[in-house]
Amino acid sequence: MTRPHHPIDSTDTLYLGAPDVARIVARKGLAACIAGVAERIHADFLRWNEFDKTPRVANHSADGVIELMPVSDASWYSFKYVNGHPKNTQRGVSTVMAFGVLADVATGAPRLLAELTLPTAIRTAAMSALAARTLARQNSRVMALVGNGAQAEFQAIAFRDLVGIRTLRAYDVDTGATEKLVRNLQGRGLDVIVCASTAEAVLGADIVTTITADKQRATIITPEMVEPGMHFNGVGGDCPGKTELHAGVLRASSVFVEYEPQTRIEGDLQQMPADFEVTELWRVLAGQAAGRTSEAQVTVFDSVGFAIEDYSALHFLHDAARELGIGDFIRLVPQMTDPKDLFATIAASSDIQRAPARSSIATISA
Amino acid sequence: MTRPHHPIDSTDTLYLGAPDVARIVARKGLAACIAGVAERIHADFLRWNEFDKTPRVANHSADGVIELMPVSDASWYSFKYVNGHPKNTQRGVSTVMAFGVLADVATGAPRLLAELTLPTAIRTAAMSALAARTLARQNSRVMALVGNGAQAEFQAIAFRDLVGIRTLRAYDVDTGATEKLVRNLQGRGLDVIVCASTAEAVLGADIVTTITADKQRATIITPEMVEPGMHFNGVGGDCPGKTELHAGVLRASSVFVEYEPQTRIEGDLQQMPADFEVTELWRVLAGQAAGRTSEAQVTVFDSVGFAIEDYSALHFLHDAARELGIGDFIRLVPQMTDPKDLFATIAASSDIQRAPARSSIATISA
Repeated sequence: MTRPHHPIDSTDTLYLGAPDVARIVARKGLAACIAGVAERIHADFLRWNEFDKTPRVANHSADGVIELMPVSDASWYSFKYVNGHPKNTQRGVSTVMAFGVLADVATGAPRLLAELTLPTAIRTAAMSALAARTLARQNSRVMALVGNGAQAEFQAIAFRDLVGIRTLRAYDVDTGATEKLVRNLQGRGLDVIVCASTAEAVLGADIVTTITADKQRATIITPEMVEPGMHFNGVGGDCPGKTELHAGVLRASSVFVEYEPQTRIEGDLQQMPADFEVTELWRVLAGQAAGRTSEAQVTVFDSVGFAIEDYSALHFLHDAARELGIGDFIRLVPQMTDPKDLFATIAASSDIQRAPARSSIATISA
Repeated sequence: MTRPHHPIDSTDTLYLGAPDVARIVARKGLAACIAGVAERIHADFLRWNEFDKTPRVANHSADGVIELMPVSDASWYSFKYVNGHPKNTQRGVSTVMAFGVLADVATGAPRLLAELTLPTAIRTAAMSALAARTLARQNSRVMALVGNGAQAEFQAIAFRDLVGIRTLRAYDVDTGATEKLVRNLQGRGLDVIVCASTAEAVLGADIVTTITADKQRATIITPEMVEPGMHFNGVGGDCPGKTELHAGVLRASSVFVEYEPQTRIEGDLQQMPADFEVTELWRVLAGQAAGRTSEAQVTVFDSVGFAIEDYSALHFLHDAARELGIGDFIRLVPQMTDPKDLFATIAASSDIQRAPARSSIATISA
C-alpha cells in the first residue's frame, strides 16, 4: 500500500485511511503524538489572528449532529467532517467519526485526506492538557475523569505527561467503560481509582475532566461539588442542548474558551447570558490576558473543539506520514492536460461510449 | 481496482476517484448523466422543505475561494468541497476542483466519497437547463454562450437535450477556449457560430448563458444587449465581488434564484438592494409561483450553485457506481470491535510501539 513520497506538482492527494493513521500513532507512540500535536496547537494558537475563522456548521437530527469545521491561513486551508451520535455505541458504531482535508490556499488543490477519529481524540486531549497546564494549580496531581468512553485514555495520558497528573478518579454510568479504561491504562504510571458516582470522583480532585456523550442538557457537575482552586475541563458540553456543568459552576468560576463565537452557541456557556464574561485561551497563552490569578480561584476550560486544533493535527499527520513513508497518493480530483478541457477527461476514460443514451433523455423530456 | 458491491453494515466508504467518475460518465454517456442528474435535481427541488439548508461557507484568499456546501434531509447528509481559482489555468490546474461525501444521517457514517469536478459541471448544466426549460420561451433554439471554458460543453449538451437549443453563438476572451469548444462539439447536432464579442454573441439569441471565471466585478451583459423575451442564465456570478450582469439587466427582468439567502451574498443579486424581489425556482417547479408570464418578459436565472444539486449528483453517482460495479471500499474512518475502545485501534495496528517517546514530551514540557 505504501509508495515513496516525493514533491508533487500534480493535484494528487495523499490519503491516510484509518489503518494508516493507527500505524502512524503506533509507530511514533501515543504520548509522542499527543505531545507533538499539543506543541503545534500551542504554536498555531499564538498566531491566532492569522487565521480566517468561523463557527462550525452543524446539521442536527433527532439522534445526532454532523459538523464541518473549516479554517485557513495564508497558505493552508483545512476542514474536518465530524459527527456526534451518542446512540451509535448501541449498534457497535463509534459515537464520533471524523476525517479531514488539508488544501493549498493558492490553488484550492486538496493535498491531504486523512481519517481524523483517532487524531480528534489526540488533539482534544492535547488541547485540554495545554489549557490545564496554563489554568490549573501548578501542583495538580489528582484528576477526576467523568465519562470513560472512547476518548478517556487520551485525556489520561495527556494530563499525565503535560500536567503531571498521577492519580485518576474514574466514573462512568457504564461500568464496562470504566473497566476498559482501567485495563487500557495498566502499567502506564497512573493510579486509577474506580468511583461509584460523579460526586465521589470529584472529591479531592485538583482537576475535573467531564467527557460524556449524551445529547441532552445534563448536569454532571453541580455547584456543591466545587472546591476552591479546582480546574474544570468540560469537554462533553459541545453542542446546542448538550451541557455538563450547572450554570452555578460557571458563575463561580473564571471561564476560558477556544473561540468565543462558537462556544457561545455550543459550550456549557450556552446557558449563560450573552454578556457573561469569558477569556479566549490564546490570549492567555500569548500573555495578553491573565489565566489563574490565585490558588483559590476556580477555573473552567469550556472546551468544544475548534478548527485550528484539527488544522494542527492534520499538519502533524502530514509530516509524520512523509517521515515514516506511510500513505498513498490518490486522484481525488482530475489531473487535466488542458485545464480548460474538462470535457476531454471523459473521452480519455478507458471505455468511452460517445452516443448519448436516448432512453434517459426521453425520461427527462417526458 | 473494482470489487463486487454488497450491502454494508460496516463504516466502510465507497470511494470514486477521478478515473472512476470519468468511467461512469463515459459508460453511461454524458447526455444520459446530464438528463439523469436533472431528473434527480427536479425531484429533490420538489421536496425543498424537507432539507436542512444553509448558505455555503466560504474562505476567501487573494486569488480564490474554497467553499463547503452541506445539506441534509431525514436520511442523507451531503457536502461538497469546491474551490474557485481563476488564475489556476495559467499554471495548468483547473479553476474549479471538487469532491464530496454522502453520509448516513442516522449514524454519521460516510457512505460515499467521490470526485465532483466533472459532476459539478454536469449538475450545473442540468440545473441551468432545468431552469431554462421553465423560464425561457418555449421555442428557444439559439443560445449565446459567453465563456467557453471547462464547463461550456456541458451547458451546450444540456440545453440541446433539455431545452431544444440547436444553434450556439460562442464567445470567449480566450480564442483558444472557443476553438476547443468547437472541436469538442463537432458532430453533436449543434451549429456553433464563433463570435468576436459578447455583443455579437448575444445578438438574436433566445437564451444567453454567461459562464465566465474572473473573480472581479465584471459587466459581461449590459442593458443595451437585452432584447424582449430573452432568458439569461447567469452562471459565473457566484461569489462576493464576482458578477456578470449589469444591475440594469436585473432591474429590467424577473429574477429567479436557487436559495435566496445564498444568492443574496454570492449572485449577481449582490448588487441589488435587500428588498429587490426574486423568486426561488423550486416554487415555480412546484406550481407555487409563476415563471414566465409573457413572450416579451425578460427572465434571469441568477445561478450560484446550491448544495441540493450536489446531493442529487452524489446520489446519481452512488446508484451508477453500484449498477456498473465501479469503485472501491475504503476505511476512511475506523472500524472498531468495541466502539468505546478507540484506544485499542492503536494496539491493533501492525507495528505498535508502546513506550512513550520521552524526547518529544521533553520538547513540549520545555
